[in-house]
Amino acid sequence: MNLYAGPTTGIAPGYVQANTVTLAAEYAGEFMQYCLNNPKHCPLLGVSRPGSKRIEHLGQNLDLSTDIPKYLLWSDGEVMGDCTEIASIWRDDWVTFALGCSFSFEHALQQKGIELAHIRDSKNVAMFDTDLATLPAGRFGGNSVVSMRPIPRARVSEVFAVCSAFEFSHGAPIHVGSPDEIGIQDLQVPDYGDAVSIAEDEVPVFWACGVTTQIALKNANLPEYITHAPGYMLVTDLQKVTEGLSAKVSAEFYSIFSSIW
Amino acid sequence: MNLYAGPTTGIAPGYVQANTVTLAAEYAGEFMQYCLNNPKHCPLLGVSRPGSKRIEHLGQNLDLSTDIPKYLLWSDGEVMGDCTEIASIWRDDWVTFALGCSFSFEHALQQKGIELAHIRDSKNVAMFDTDLATLPAGRFGGNSVVSMRPIPRARVSEVFAVCSAFEFSHGAPIHVGSPDEIGIQDLQVPDYGDAVSIAEDEVPVFWACGVTTQIALKNANLPEYITHAPGYMLVTDLQKVTEGLSAKVSAEFYSIFSSIW
Repeated sequence: MNLYAGPTTGIAPGYVQANTVTLAAEYAGEFMQYCLNNPKHCPLLGVSRPGSKRIEHLGQNLDLSTDIPKYLLWSDGEVMGDCTEIASIWRDDWVTFALGCSFSFEHALQQKGIELAHIRDSKNVAMFDTDLATLPAGRFGGNSVVSMRPIPRARVSEVFAVCSAFEFSHGAPIHVGSPDEIGIQDLQVPDYGDAVSIAEDEVPVFWACGVTTQIALKNANLPEYITHAPGYMLVTDLQKVTEGLSAKVSAEFYSIFSSIW
Repeated sequence: MNLYAGPTTGIAPGYVQANTVTLAAEYAGEFMQYCLNNPKHCPLLGVSRPGSKRIEHLGQNLDLSTDIPKYLLWSDGEVMGDCTEIASIWRDDWVTFALGCSFSFEHALQQKGIELAHIRDSKNVAMFDTDLATLPAGRFGGNSVVSMRPIPRARVSEVFAVCSAFEFSHGAPIHVGSPDEIGIQDLQVPDYGDAVSIAEDEVPVFWACGVTTQIALKNANLPEYITHAPGYMLVTDLQKVTEGLSAKVSAEFYSIFSSIW
């Protein structure tokens, strides 16, 4: 309902937040395939019907054209501008995807007493391009982007155990230790976000990151699409994601888009 | 209990069957990471404790050293032999992984009246190497292997909707249509299994395949490991996989292997 226009880190703790992508229905099938191919990077929380401003299970009064605090408008892989509503430019063939983000597992780790350096220091998490390819789908593809959090060596197992349960929030880390094994040159020079220092007793732990989706969208060179602005997420009404939600979302999608092939 | 030594296709319909990998505990952490990184290819159903012949939730009387109808013994990526039990060579540091296979979703598709050519013709499913990289983990990595099933064009959406619910059984297909887009030269020359013809109204549909795991194991050059023989799977007591099973298996694993890092 367009009541809040700030960053959503730490807002409404316990409620699931989502990355969003809004694109024309003609690309929705291929983008859906990309999400299904890369569940660690693009965990599906919901998809709207073409032209609909609602995704029923994510919020009773949700309006996708106003309820994301800041939108980015993209063309051919470049940001053309940002805005706080897209109601005035709404199109009847738009489909919106809501994808899980890292806030859910970060919240769970903090509740276990595992301190996260970027939150302690009020920074954005450090993110890096890697040389790890994702599974492509048509025009969507590209390498994985990862987020990095320093974790005390003695607690890495606990981090895996906790995060595995958050499949809708990037799940277990995809790499621990040597950044050069996954194509990262210097941990102090992130490609996105802010650098954090790593203590003697800590190891760098890497998670699949939602920015991967932005890279895949860039590579697709669509004439027009819209995403949330980084850090300005869709705050949903969900406090817990029902297991099997991705499968239900997918089944519903293919019942609507039954003539893609 | 070593009562049955034949192929398990069509055996115990409705019961979940599993690929198995048995390797030394020193490699278990890295192999677990590979499975978690590639849930479409290596869906986790269970992991044993080191030296244990049991995975409690897969069968009350399960004995991993005798209950797989045929085992393959591997060294440095080559098959050294096969046998119907490994009790006589059992080692106290062995860890066994049980991974979901395609039988579960095939059974579900058949129940929806979607005919599968390889089952109709009593063939092995056609499988192909691709140029799609998996997400590596230490010494484990390599390209995806896919299985291909011809599906009537009008029913592809239904196939996606059905298979999405079988996350533990490779989930939704990863590609539809052009084989050359994923590095496959000729659909009539599979790299594994048997060729099937594709009718005029059908399209080739490709799923992530468990043979991907065998490629990753080959690439790792372990001095010794054991797998089930293709088609001779572990038949579990499970009729339905509880949602979130992979997460529970992972959490238990990391509570045991807490000192990997």
